[in-house]
Order: sequence, then structure tokens, then C-alpha cells
Amino acid sequence: MSEGPKVVALGGGHGLYASLSALRAVTERLTAVVTVADDGGSSGRLRRELGVLPPGDLRMALAALCGDDEWGQTWRDVVQHRFRSDGDLKDHAVGNLLIVALWELFGGDGPGSTVAGLDWVGRLLGAHGRVLPMAAVPMDIVAEVRGADPARPDEISQVKGQVACASTPGAVLGVSLVPADPPACPEALAAVEDADWIVFGPGSWFTSVLPHLKVPALARALTSSRARRVVALNLAPQPGETDDFSPQAHLEVLQAHAPDLRVDVVLADSGVVDDPEALDKAVQALGGRLVLAEVAADDGSPRHEPARLAQAFVQIFSE
Amino acid sequence: MSEGPKVVALGGGHGLYASLSALRAVTERLTAVVTVADDGGSSGRLRRELGVLPPGDLRMALAALCGDDEWGQTWRDVVQHRFRSDGDLKDHAVGNLLIVALWELFGGDGPGSTVAGLDWVGRLLGAHGRVLPMAAVPMDIVAEVRGADPARPDEISQVKGQVACASTPGAVLGVSLVPADPPACPEALAAVEDADWIVFGPGSWFTSVLPHLKVPALARALTSSRARRVVALNLAPQPGETDDFSPQAHLEVLQAHAPDLRVDVVLADSGVVDDPEALDKAVQALGGRLVLAEVAADDGSPRHEPARLAQAFVQIFSE
Repeated sequence: MSEGPKVVALGGGHGLYASLSALRAVTERLTAVVTVADDGGSSGRLRRELGVLPPGDLRMALAALCGDDEWGQTWRDVVQHRFRSDGDLKDHAVGNLLIVALWELFGGDGPGSTVAGLDWVGRLLGAHGRVLPMAAVPMDIVAEVRGADPARPDEISQVKGQVACASTPGAVLGVSLVPADPPACPEALAAVEDADWIVFGPGSWFTSVLPHLKVPALARALTSSRARRVVALNLAPQPGETDDFSPQAHLEVLQAHAPDLRVDVVLADSGVVDDPEALDKAVQALGGRLVLAEVAADDGSPRHEPARLAQAFVQIFSE
Repeated sequence: MSEGPKVVALGGGHGLYASLSALRAVTERLTAVVTVADDGGSSGRLRRELGVLPPGDLRMALAALCGDDEWGQTWRDVVQHRFRSDGDLKDHAVGNLLIVALWELFGGDGPGSTVAGLDWVGRLLGAHGRVLPMAAVPMDIVAEVRGADPARPDEISQVKGQVACASTPGAVLGVSLVPADPPACPEALAAVEDADWIVFGPGSWFTSVLPHLKVPALARALTSSRARRVVALNLAPQPGETDDFSPQAHLEVLQAHAPDLRVDVVLADSGVVDDPEALDKAVQALGGRLVLAEVAADDGSPRHEPARLAQAFVQIFSE
């Protein structure tokens, strides 16, 4: 391939892992901009113990971009390895510890050292692209939820924290961030401004994909960038976060969180869209066109097949 | 320099760090064989939590051999970095966690995966040499101590564990290992058998230098190897372990722990030997010759200056 277009992929967790696994085959100019609001597991513990950005989603994005050779794959396996014990290290991912160590070494949590630390892990992995945080400080997601307490199904209340938001039994109506105006990562803003394509999703809609739009400076850059914008929809609603959400409902909440955002392309799997006309209408309302393609894995899991997703991106980027 | 002689350096902790820092400038064919009996600090906790070899002395040896470029020095700093907190990660050295992760990844604590994991950290650091454990299983040092209980100054008792042995208020008379016949590391045996020079010390005499001689297969290899043997004496007695020990007392306990061991050269700092004649006599009893050289740092600390120690080794190896 040639160098390929300049692509910025937004998200976190397994969804971003999927988009990066596809996009790394499509372009050599790839930047991931990653949610840093996790408060659970290894990342949550590191955040509380050491006062750092939660590193887990950043680590997964770096792992998705690792080199193809023995070197890259070995260090990816190390970075993704988790300690299994009943002691202090229980479930800590080695890459999380490595990223935090580099941050501490480079002099704290300023944006410069944050990015430098991630770049060093990228060099270790021989990463095909760059991984940046969406903001320079740790933050919390706050969700407006209807029926968070099942005993009061109609009551709207606030649920705080990524884990709580992702697992609430209620219906999530929208998300905001605490702090409400976190400093964006300058390198992420520059990447967005300079991009040819910006890819939203797939991923946990409220806790991984939409938070970028609630970082004010990043939202402005995403809205005003001359880049074209693709939304890659999920293959299935996510229990807790987006129970019963239709594909078009995902677009409606996207629009609600960023009314000024224009979308050029919405990519959905042809096998999971029940009502293509309704979806097409929702896509047009955003100013874009719908691309249906087979991008799901064959095993029936709600998982994108990287090669198929890559093929879909190639098609989209070339039109 | 040419490739240099094949050198095996024995020890652990800061003493081995010093000898490796010097020897790396003298030869490109350098192997460290490291004590694995630590039961304190980060290493002791990892050993108890995960059932692995204590990695700390191995990590320090690898750090001493890191590449001279920005890559090698950055990863050395990462590997040596310690988390400072009051939580689960308190005082853990990042390199210890990395080594243990590689061991787990490569399939447990067999000698093959142990060495493979250390070789990968060596590759990460661009290490000028190889680092191997003296045995393939974790072990404990047991010291015979006179007056371990200050209330009974003449009583001889056993003290177990590296930390306890290194800090006993009594006089250490000798050490043994539990288990008494640990399996040696095959690669370490091969390195010793193939060496041109074997370097004992400097370092904590009873807990870092002598334990190698209590691993039966390694002791046989050290005694029977066609290599010449250098003993690099410490610059000062070590509080606890070798209080009031003269230089020749160090040699006497060495001989007591390995009666068949011949020594070719004993290196001591000319500034700290009070009685050169007595030392020379003790050296001759081991079959060797005494080399006095200025190898101490100028700051008055009991620390070897790597460049001076290197110069002394060059002289010894060339004669």
C-alpha cells in the first residue's frame, strides 16, 4: 500500500481495538485518540493509587498496533499479560504498569510526559501508528439515567463512573464529564485538525465513543476539522449501556451530544440492520450516506472481523 | 577493543552491579551468574505472591549491562524505576514485574523459560552481556551465626533468609542453602565451563558471593573449570554480615565454603588494606597472587569506581 490517508480513530476498549486492527492494514498514518475515564479494574486501581490517567484503554490501543514480527508480538503479549494471584498484583496488566512507570519517569502527568510515555511504548511494540489520550487529565463519566433504581423506573438520576454507567440497569440518556472542561491533549487536537478521515466507533457508545465529544476543545476540533467523518456502528446493542438501541438510536444520541457534527459516512453491518430505510433516513439527517457491508465475524459473536472491516474502510476512503 | 576474554561474574545486588559496570568495558563476552535467594522488598513479595524466582538481583545485573544509547538508557531507567505509594505497588521495581511477566508468559518456572525471559529483557536493554540465575529454583540462605541473640553472645544458632542473614547482630560463620541441592541453571554451568576468567565479588560476602559455592553442580563447575579465577574484595566490611572482617578473613571464609577452589588473583584496593603482608599470605594459601590497585571512588564511599575497576581487570586479564 501507499502511505494511505491520515486517519484518526476515536474510542476505547475492545471497540477501538477492532477499528485499529482494521485500520492498521489500510493506512500507515494512523492516530488513536482514546477515552481516559475508566475507573474499574487495573486502570481504576492505578488511577486511585498513583493519581495517573487510567492507562488500560491506551494500552489496548497500543497492543492493537503492535509490529508483525516476533519482537512486536512478544512485547504485545507482555504488555497484555495480566498477573493472576490473590495478592497485590491481582489482575494488573503489565502494560498498564509500564505506561505508568514511563509517565512517572518523564516527570509527572503533564501532557508532554503523557505523550512521551505512550510514544515509548509505541516504539517498544513497533506500533503501526500513534496512541494519544483524549484529554490530559483523568476524568469521570456522569450519565443521566432513567430507572437507575429499578424500584423507580421513571425517575431520572445521575450515575457516576465508567463502570457504573456501563452496567446500570436503567436506560442511559446521555453523558457528561467531570471535570466538565478538561484540557485536551494538544497532539490529539493537531491530529484531528490534520486528518483526512475521522472514525467514530465501534465501541461502548456512551462510555467510549461519545466522551470525546464532551471534551470541549476536542469537540470543536472534531466538528470544524476539514476531515471527513465515518461512524462505524456496533454489531449489537450493549447490555446495560445501549439495551434495545436500534442502529439509528445510536446516531440520534451522537447528534444529541454534538449537534454541530456533520457525518459523511455511516458504516453498518448488512446482516444486523433490520430496517435499512429507517437507518438511511437517520444517516441523511446527519448529512451523510449509509454504507452497508459484511463486517461481522463468522462465529456469531458481536465482533468485527478485522479483514472485512479493513476492506470496508478501503472502499469508503477511496470513494 | 577486540571481543575480549570470556568472563563470568558471580554475585548479586550492588556488588555485582559494580563488577559488571567495570567488566562491560573490558569484554564483549560477559555473563553474570546471579544469586536468587532474596526474600526482602519487591523481590520477596513477588516470590511469595507468585511463586517465582526473586527477580531483583537479576534486574540490577541487566540494568548494569544496558546499552549506551538513549534506547538502552531509557529502558534501564524504566526497569529500575520503583513505584512510590502507600498502596499495592509500593516499592515494586518495574523491571521485577517485567521479568516475572515474561517468565509467566513463557510458561512457568522451568529453566528454559527463566533464561528466555531474562534474554528478552536483555534484548530490550541492548545489554552488553547475558544474565543468568545461579539456580533454577528460588532458595533460602541459612546462616550459622554466633550471638544472633545479643543476650546470648556465645550461642551458635541458625538464621534463615537473606534479609535476616544480612542484618543479624551476630557474627556469621557460614552459609548453606535450602534446598541443599538446588538444580543449577544449565546455561550458567556451560558459561562457567567455557569461561576464560571467573570473577567472584565484590558484594555481600555471605549472601551474594558465597551462595554460588553452595549450589553443588555450580560449585563443581567453578572448581573444575579451566578458567582462571579472580576474587575482587570489598572496600569495607559490611555492617551485619562481615563486621570486623579483615580482607584475609573474607578469603578464609571463601576457602572454608569451597576447600577445593583455587584462586589465581585476588584484587584489593591499595588504600584500604592495612596489612598487605597478611593478605598476601592468605592469597598464597589459595594458590594465587595479590593485585593491589586504586579501585575505590574518590568520594570516600565504599564504592568501586567502574573505570578504575575496569583498568584493574584489563591489567589482570592481560598478564
